[in-house]
Amino acid sequence: MSLLEDLKWRYATKKMNGTKVPQDKLDYILEAARLAPSSSGLQPYKVIVISDKALLEKIKGISWNQSQVTDCSHLLVFAAWDGYTDERVSKVFNYTMDERGLPHSTMDDYKNNLLGMYSQLSPEWHAHHASKQSYIAFGLAIAAAAEQKVDATPIEGFIPEKLDKLLKLEGSGYKSTLLLPIGYREEENDWLVNMKKIRTPKEDFVTEMTLADAADFDEAPMEGSLGDPT
Amino acid sequence: MSLLEDLKWRYATKKMNGTKVPQDKLDYILEAARLAPSSSGLQPYKVIVISDKALLEKIKGISWNQSQVTDCSHLLVFAAWDGYTDERVSKVFNYTMDERGLPHSTMDDYKNNLLGMYSQLSPEWHAHHASKQSYIAFGLAIAAAAEQKVDATPIEGFIPEKLDKLLKLEGSGYKSTLLLPIGYREEENDWLVNMKKIRTPKEDFVTEMTLADAADFDEAPMEGSLGDPT
Repeated sequence: MSLLEDLKWRYATKKMNGTKVPQDKLDYILEAARLAPSSSGLQPYKVIVISDKALLEKIKGISWNQSQVTDCSHLLVFAAWDGYTDERVSKVFNYTMDERGLPHSTMDDYKNNLLGMYSQLSPEWHAHHASKQSYIAFGLAIAAAAEQKVDATPIEGFIPEKLDKLLKLEGSGYKSTLLLPIGYREEENDWLVNMKKIRTPKEDFVTEMTLADAADFDEAPMEGSLGDPT
Repeated sequence: MSLLEDLKWRYATKKMNGTKVPQDKLDYILEAARLAPSSSGLQPYKVIVISDKALLEKIKGISWNQSQVTDCSHLLVFAAWDGYTDERVSKVFNYTMDERGLPHSTMDDYKNNLLGMYSQLSPEWHAHHASKQSYIAFGLAIAAAAEQKVDATPIEGFIPEKLDKLLKLEGSGYKSTLLLPIGYREEENDWLVNMKKIRTPKEDFVTEMTLADAADFDEAPMEGSLGDPT
């Protein structure tokens, strides 16, 4: 099947049947998330995997009682950095340079530009920005699950502050951003399974533009670049 | 090829050669973005497609002079709602109910819950939240491009306020969130093409948790649900 066929097959499963997802498929889905691109390659997020029913029951209680949280095979909790610091950014860049056999200084211009920009932005902006990166990985996990014919339900409907407390994320530098229960649909009890998939019509979703459609804009181009490796 | 193989093949292409991406592949990539899941199915985003070189030159000037912006075949500009309003949300829900042959009132409880929650949140939160949804679609567009062996470079490095002005998004209810130039790599001039792909090691990326690892937490579960269709 192609990605488009997988995306048509999948839906936000409302009722799961508790069947276990095999370990190799779970690993495949997590690997897709791990391979996701992120801003400056920082991957400011991680995934917590939970299959302990007692813990899932507690999470359900702070997730609007959505049944998939306990009827799934595994719950993937995405959690993102609460902010960008020199220490965190340098750790990733240094690891990257080590793995590529390059001196740590190779990306210094880029890193200093980046930290300079980040230092001007609010803590809220930092947390939102790191959280956004986790949405890309989340999208790829959803695609990977669909490819493996594993059902998955994207969930933002939970109380992140309470989940952070429950999962001891408070003070860890991470905040929970998204939930993805994975498992298998229980068709006979799922109101959504046979509903038509609705999306914005293509003509409203995609617009083409040329210079003639754009505003008059004669600002001088930026000088310099983002600072590629030297 | 599998999704994982596609994700290993792709990289943030630094130099493109200007070759055109065929229309059917462009349509395929846009369709993957269109099929992406989003919070409450609202799809609070759209994609602007630009291949006009004169307009791309202007965008390059507000995108740190990144060469892919002009050497791509098409630039996909993702733009998200600047906020959630009753009018916008109702329009999507009403369209969904019409397509499913259900009365508009079917999702009223759910919609009223949602609007009630949104009304308590700041304009900044609204814009960030809608923007986040576009990152899921962005991830699926990247996956679709890789599957089609089309190169793509995820770009956040641009000045959104200037791009919004240039593309006449100001006052339209949308804000630009992400750029995705698509095209074909020019290997001989791309410093990244032969570098090892680096990601957070799996043991740092994935954590497993059980109740024994969690905090003591004996809050009463939430009452009620999100309000499924009635």
